[in-house]
Amino acid sequence: MGRFSYLRSVSAQHIDCLSSYRNYNNFTKLNIFHFGYSMTVLSPSAEERLHTVLSRLETLLGSRISRAPSVLEEHSHGEAMESARLPGAVIFAESTDDVSTVLKECHASRVPLVAFGAGTSVEGHVTPPEHAISLDLSRMTGIVEMNPEDLDCRVQAGLTRQALNTQIRDTGLFFPVDPGGEATLGGMCATRASGTAAVRYGTMKENVLGLTVVLATGEVIRTGGRVRKSSTGYDLTSLFIGSEGTLGIITEIQLKLHGRPDTLSAAVCQFESLNDAVQTAMEIIQCGIPINRVELMDSVQMDASIRYSKLTGYRPLTTLFFEFAGAPAAVQEQVTATQEIALANNGLGFAWAESAEDRARLWKARHDAYWAAKAIDPTARVISTDCIVPISRLGELIAGVSSDIAASGLRAPLLGHVGDGNFHTLIITEHSPEGYAQALDLDRKIVGRALALGGSCSGEHGVGLGKLEFLAQEHGEGSLGVMRALKNTMDPHHILNPGKLLPNGPVYRG
Amino acid sequence: MGRFSYLRSVSAQHIDCLSSYRNYNNFTKLNIFHFGYSMTVLSPSAEERLHTVLSRLETLLGSRISRAPSVLEEHSHGEAMESARLPGAVIFAESTDDVSTVLKECHASRVPLVAFGAGTSVEGHVTPPEHAISLDLSRMTGIVEMNPEDLDCRVQAGLTRQALNTQIRDTGLFFPVDPGGEATLGGMCATRASGTAAVRYGTMKENVLGLTVVLATGEVIRTGGRVRKSSTGYDLTSLFIGSEGTLGIITEIQLKLHGRPDTLSAAVCQFESLNDAVQTAMEIIQCGIPINRVELMDSVQMDASIRYSKLTGYRPLTTLFFEFAGAPAAVQEQVTATQEIALANNGLGFAWAESAEDRARLWKARHDAYWAAKAIDPTARVISTDCIVPISRLGELIAGVSSDIAASGLRAPLLGHVGDGNFHTLIITEHSPEGYAQALDLDRKIVGRALALGGSCSGEHGVGLGKLEFLAQEHGEGSLGVMRALKNTMDPHHILNPGKLLPNGPVYRG
Repeated sequence: MGRFSYLRSVSAQHIDCLSSYRNYNNFTKLNIFHFGYSMTVLSPSAEERLHTVLSRLETLLGSRISRAPSVLEEHSHGEAMESARLPGAVIFAESTDDVSTVLKECHASRVPLVAFGAGTSVEGHVTPPEHAISLDLSRMTGIVEMNPEDLDCRVQAGLTRQALNTQIRDTGLFFPVDPGGEATLGGMCATRASGTAAVRYGTMKENVLGLTVVLATGEVIRTGGRVRKSSTGYDLTSLFIGSEGTLGIITEIQLKLHGRPDTLSAAVCQFESLNDAVQTAMEIIQCGIPINRVELMDSVQMDASIRYSKLTGYRPLTTLFFEFAGAPAAVQEQVTATQEIALANNGLGFAWAESAEDRARLWKARHDAYWAAKAIDPTARVISTDCIVPISRLGELIAGVSSDIAASGLRAPLLGHVGDGNFHTLIITEHSPEGYAQALDLDRKIVGRALALGGSCSGEHGVGLGKLEFLAQEHGEGSLGVMRALKNTMDPHHILNPGKLLPNGPVYRG
Repeated sequence: MGRFSYLRSVSAQHIDCLSSYRNYNNFTKLNIFHFGYSMTVLSPSAEERLHTVLSRLETLLGSRISRAPSVLEEHSHGEAMESARLPGAVIFAESTDDVSTVLKECHASRVPLVAFGAGTSVEGHVTPPEHAISLDLSRMTGIVEMNPEDLDCRVQAGLTRQALNTQIRDTGLFFPVDPGGEATLGGMCATRASGTAAVRYGTMKENVLGLTVVLATGEVIRTGGRVRKSSTGYDLTSLFIGSEGTLGIITEIQLKLHGRPDTLSAAVCQFESLNDAVQTAMEIIQCGIPINRVELMDSVQMDASIRYSKLTGYRPLTTLFFEFAGAPAAVQEQVTATQEIALANNGLGFAWAESAEDRARLWKARHDAYWAAKAIDPTARVISTDCIVPISRLGELIAGVSSDIAASGLRAPLLGHVGDGNFHTLIITEHSPEGYAQALDLDRKIVGRALALGGSCSGEHGVGLGKLEFLAQEHGEGSLGVMRALKNTMDPHHILNPGKLLPNGPVYRG
């Protein structure tokens, strides 16, 4: 029996009960409270447990498990490298059943795991915990159901939004949430992603009707459904959206689709003053113009994008990119109203992108902003910030951020989804610990300003590891205590992406 | 010390731990498990506990507590009478602090309570549990913050949507969610309400940015915020929306507001065939026409409404009510497209309500449908059903429901928010147990059809007591097990509106 014999003699029921006393995020010990008398029993090491689980899973899943060094390396990080750590193994799930099989074993042996899609997270979400499995869902790319008559479909979590839109093109429908990168829809759910089209269509939160989720125990549940609204029961779908793989693994998604608009029109307006551009975006939203996209690039970003994306005909000035969509007369009304607002705010005239090719070139330039910023100094690294405030505070925030950037001595082009009050600065810094520290210092100043103005430290990138330090200030310990209680309920052994999304702290007890 | 001495000697910590073994919804005993040895200790009776709490609260809240028979009677039920039960007392909260004070005492003494707003629930939500307090929030009617430049405001939970819209009229903004009745915004959050404008503006779920919530312990938290989107942390706001007062008491709400549209236009189109009208509504949605409202009344309801609301110029035929909103040319496009669809489906021509008075008369008739149905037989009672299906199944469902109504021998006018796939039948039945049973039997048939077609048993009225029996079929025991686990975490002593929303059953244990 050895050193685990006492542990085995305690029934599972009692361990469940007693485990609620563990400290948040504590994996190394099992503290057993016994009416005032406390003892500590060493559990098998995390490494031993991982080894045991992988031996069992190799029998069940065979070649879907990889320990090839290149595969482990690929799964050691997202697009942020700081937090890289090799997983013990990568498992390529091909079905909800595979995910359930993996979770059952991990749950039984208390082995942590993290889901992996396209690896495009910039906040360290997919970095494996210690002695963990990386569960790759990128082979789960099926469209399970297509219901064009109800404007919905059901997809597997590993499908990317681009692949979905390509496959459903002939239905006349599309999925509008567009974070720019080639992300999987599962990852977009897990981080509550949004992007350039959120100002019109909302985020993942508003565009998911239901989910299939594998819980920590391996049990499979379905949340939500196909109906457009329902008043029955707790909104589990919204609880999993944005939970960053810490409450369950999303394997299927029921998505809302939208009809492709009759008319699409894009335009660009440049401004001598950043403040005039921000004011224009604010007034468009305040007037309720149902604009499809309204994106800002400051003069530094525009300069970089003109070079990188060969945007001829533009000057390195602050620029707003507009997209209008709808029926033809409705679009014309939106355009007229927008032009009036922009010109009243000293806009330097509208340049139209009428053809599909011109529009594609413009939006590609917008989506390539990160690469354009990187090209400013190919030897440097680029770190993206991601703040959001109520739109009326955006001008004040950007003015403050501009002075922070100037004071930092760093180059940091600024761009964003200004219709939502959300923007990014792309901080260009050295590939060195000092360079990274300097960038983080600037990021902290920017987040501090946003929080002081009633904002959030992340509009769309998520918390992961990168934003943990800001959560108490943003939500308050009371709300975080409730979140920790929910985490402990759904995943008391903290096997699901532990250490992400929630900083340590007190747990709500009802 | 007496019979509670053993209980007192067990530390609060251990009671918290051990109470997780209680059966779901079991209030009468405290079962203490002690490593395989179980004993039952009688706690003070529910009546004694209520008495203790009220004595303490009388010192703290004085005249805000009422036991006047008329007040108790008014708080013994919502609009459904079956489940009426007198509360032990009614407490009129005037602030979040008052709510917190009440919950602290109730939590300490395990006394159940239910929040009460306008009492318009039709599913028994506000019926007090046994030996409970009814916590009336209708005096909390303040607008805490008004941010017209960000299209949001913060209100106290007892404010009604009509009162809000009257008070903010001069800002040019309005709150669009319109369930018809004079409901409080807190109650609308608690039941995830929607109504006629949800097809355009969404439900409460899409229109609430954040909440102040008093938890079971009396602790006050704020969820969400003022930003339009955020990717930080679990979506607690959505968890409380639709939780029917079982997870916490909502005391303040940050609401999205919308600009009043430039142009509003309403029209009516009648059809010989119910199916043609349903087909028209379906095609409007499938074509993506951003219609403001599209409401159906069948010939029985129309006959009743013509009499009750003196709708001259209409025939007792199936009727669609349309509302279009937006900028003028956009509205004209919507109107043209809708007319084409309606006429292609044998619509008998459009009657326009151009003036504000005509529109008001039309929508008042729609909102008075319940009273019109009641007037069919003033001695009868009217029970509303509330199903929703994916819109492509609506025609099939309504055809089936029509045959069920015919077979039942009951009169049951049909009307609904057909743009969402949501409709109600107003079952007219006798004021007798047999009449009630007959109506419930018809309701079960209707719900059974909706669930078989991938629908939900409630589009907007909520679960309360009335829909408990359908939840396992709709959500599956797996999802319900998770919901029960969340309930136990947030309110382990089940003091918050116990017995509502969740049927008894197994609890998820991670």
